[in-house]
Amino acid sequence: MPPFDIPEGDPFGPHNLPYGVFSLPGPAERTVGVRLGDHVLDAGAAARALGSPHAALLARPTLNPLLAAGRTTWSEVRRTLTEAVTDPAHRATLEPLLHPLSSVTLHLPFDVADYVDFYASENHARNVGRIFRPDAPDSLTPNWKHLPIGYHGRSGTVIVSGTDVVRPSGQRKGPADPAPVFGPSVRLDIEAEVGFVVGVPSAMGKPVAAAAFRDHVFGLCLLNDWSARDVQAWEYVPLGPFLGKSFATSVSAWITPLEALEEARVAPPGRTHPLLPYLDDTSAEPAGYDLRISIAINGHVVSEPPFASMYWTAAQQLAHMTVNGASLRTGDLYGSGTVSGPAPEQRGSLLELTWNGRDALELPDGKRTFLEDGDEVTLSAWAPGPGGLRVGLGEVSGRIVAG
Amino acid sequence: MPPFDIPEGDPFGPHNLPYGVFSLPGPAERTVGVRLGDHVLDAGAAARALGSPHAALLARPTLNPLLAAGRTTWSEVRRTLTEAVTDPAHRATLEPLLHPLSSVTLHLPFDVADYVDFYASENHARNVGRIFRPDAPDSLTPNWKHLPIGYHGRSGTVIVSGTDVVRPSGQRKGPADPAPVFGPSVRLDIEAEVGFVVGVPSAMGKPVAAAAFRDHVFGLCLLNDWSARDVQAWEYVPLGPFLGKSFATSVSAWITPLEALEEARVAPPGRTHPLLPYLDDTSAEPAGYDLRISIAINGHVVSEPPFASMYWTAAQQLAHMTVNGASLRTGDLYGSGTVSGPAPEQRGSLLELTWNGRDALELPDGKRTFLEDGDEVTLSAWAPGPGGLRVGLGEVSGRIVAG
Repeated sequence: MPPFDIPEGDPFGPHNLPYGVFSLPGPAERTVGVRLGDHVLDAGAAARALGSPHAALLARPTLNPLLAAGRTTWSEVRRTLTEAVTDPAHRATLEPLLHPLSSVTLHLPFDVADYVDFYASENHARNVGRIFRPDAPDSLTPNWKHLPIGYHGRSGTVIVSGTDVVRPSGQRKGPADPAPVFGPSVRLDIEAEVGFVVGVPSAMGKPVAAAAFRDHVFGLCLLNDWSARDVQAWEYVPLGPFLGKSFATSVSAWITPLEALEEARVAPPGRTHPLLPYLDDTSAEPAGYDLRISIAINGHVVSEPPFASMYWTAAQQLAHMTVNGASLRTGDLYGSGTVSGPAPEQRGSLLELTWNGRDALELPDGKRTFLEDGDEVTLSAWAPGPGGLRVGLGEVSGRIVAG
Repeated sequence: MPPFDIPEGDPFGPHNLPYGVFSLPGPAERTVGVRLGDHVLDAGAAARALGSPHAALLARPTLNPLLAAGRTTWSEVRRTLTEAVTDPAHRATLEPLLHPLSSVTLHLPFDVADYVDFYASENHARNVGRIFRPDAPDSLTPNWKHLPIGYHGRSGTVIVSGTDVVRPSGQRKGPADPAPVFGPSVRLDIEAEVGFVVGVPSAMGKPVAAAAFRDHVFGLCLLNDWSARDVQAWEYVPLGPFLGKSFATSVSAWITPLEALEEARVAPPGRTHPLLPYLDDTSAEPAGYDLRISIAINGHVVSEPPFASMYWTAAQQLAHMTVNGASLRTGDLYGSGTVSGPAPEQRGSLLELTWNGRDALELPDGKRTFLEDGDEVTLSAWAPGPGGLRVGLGEVSGRIVAG
């Protein structure tokens, strides 16, 4: 039995220790915690009790100071917290610092600087191409295999798991409509993604190499890039998605440090096109991650997208995002793009799962093409960990409410 | 003669008073100042000397606390500072708080939250359409007259006037190239725009009406949306501009409060298409601004774009940006889009001025299609003010340096 009565094999055992920000009931302040089973450990207080020089980085209302501290400090803090939760000598000291998850409030774990969203799943991009451009000779745009396509999103509407999502209104125009109409979106969708959180900033004018990925990126989390397909379809030519995406982006309350995912690293799919040197990862360490994602609507699993199938890796995305000299800031967040595997039951959006509404999903509570008010969507995931254990990713969930 | 020996008719006289953030030489801290002629007045110290209850809002290293304080406070602060610089009784008190611009460092005046860029000039959009889609039946996309097209940009690379711009590198692919090539952009351009600075935030899920524009937006400034046309052309389908824009966006060091621009308000051009109610401004107060912009390369004026010609107003853009429930934050910045008037000598980008490089500009130091290393671009502007005075907008300049 591991310490603190965590069940054997718990995906949030001492091998995981994702970071979040919590507060206790009442007027308590926010502070950094690590998840242990169905509890959260006050990380700053624990680090102080163990004499860590980094305790002050953790006794803060946001992860940003820890994110900015860099890889050596990330490792030292993780070692301290691992010792805290695995050495029985600390048990009496730390038990008062462990709070049931059901007794705390979880907050957005970091202050989001810029938010970028990519489009890195070949299966997803091909499905979208087939749905919207059925007559095109290739379902991919000509640039797709040469660069990881991305665009900036709205960082001010990144919300933590558990926050309701108000159904957005906007303009839409069907092919037969003489003019656009205004109203609540009738094609509200999800996009199951993985978000990467930048810790260490970079200077303007200085590209960051793909090989420096783990020096800059602290960790990852599940991300739901809610999308109003009808709004998006009318607005996005020529400058890309705007209001169809900017109303809300949900992230997990828990950021999994990359250090917890060493056993989950895998090679990305074989490259079918030669890559320019700044994106070439053929001789690099594997930069893909074997994350097994699950999408549930009202508790019913509708898809299981495999993150290992992504064509572009997060390391390539980091290199691309900065190759023009754009700087990184602590708290930058970038999404992988919708994760869709090759099989129909591995698709990461309702757009694909229902083939743009043609094939309704059969749920226990009725048919679905797109989301209805009251629907709750939950993304969860796990990755292979040490000794056959699973590393759980914090879930991200959100319920649709009428506007 | 106005007080403090400001020349009669100076566009930065007491009728203007734009806000910035400055520091004195040495280890001095940043603090808010207002520009008066070629001097900057320490605004916090001046407000304290006059007994203003808002002095603490100004003795800060960024404008954000003032921005967040709201319209009533904005007016009270402006009244206090106007009294400070116009009542001779305060002269002896305030003269030590007035510093020559040449003796101070000007900083990015506010912490940028989200940055959005619009595309609101019909002349610009039509020019771009004619250049890139010469065979299309209409030079505008079908949505252009129905909504102000916009997209999110990178707020982390918004820089203050005077900061060098490193020429970005990236992928580009001409029609004849078998594969993309990588290197410094060879089509580096400017976009002359006006940026609007949000002060008062809004709640998620609650759209902000166009009529509430002046309750939320504090002021405006000149903005140069530097653009690598070759990078942009290859990357932007289907998700819009990314690295072609994200390397740098320059803003003026001076934010002109909307209150200083009452005499500059004008009706926008007549609407050729009916507008949905949330964008309909036909019965509203005029929401256009008569700003006369000038673009100079190495001191030589190449264009004079009239902001009054913009089809979409900043009030409409605010309403559109939030109609899906997206929230506003203090420090949100949104650009008007390139300002191009109807005449060739009023175009706001080199793309248009040289018709995509076909017609080189003749400058005193040689021909230009796009920008060369060492080129310094300066945007300046003025607006009609009270009693025939001009209200000067702070210039925005930047020099291109090799990557």
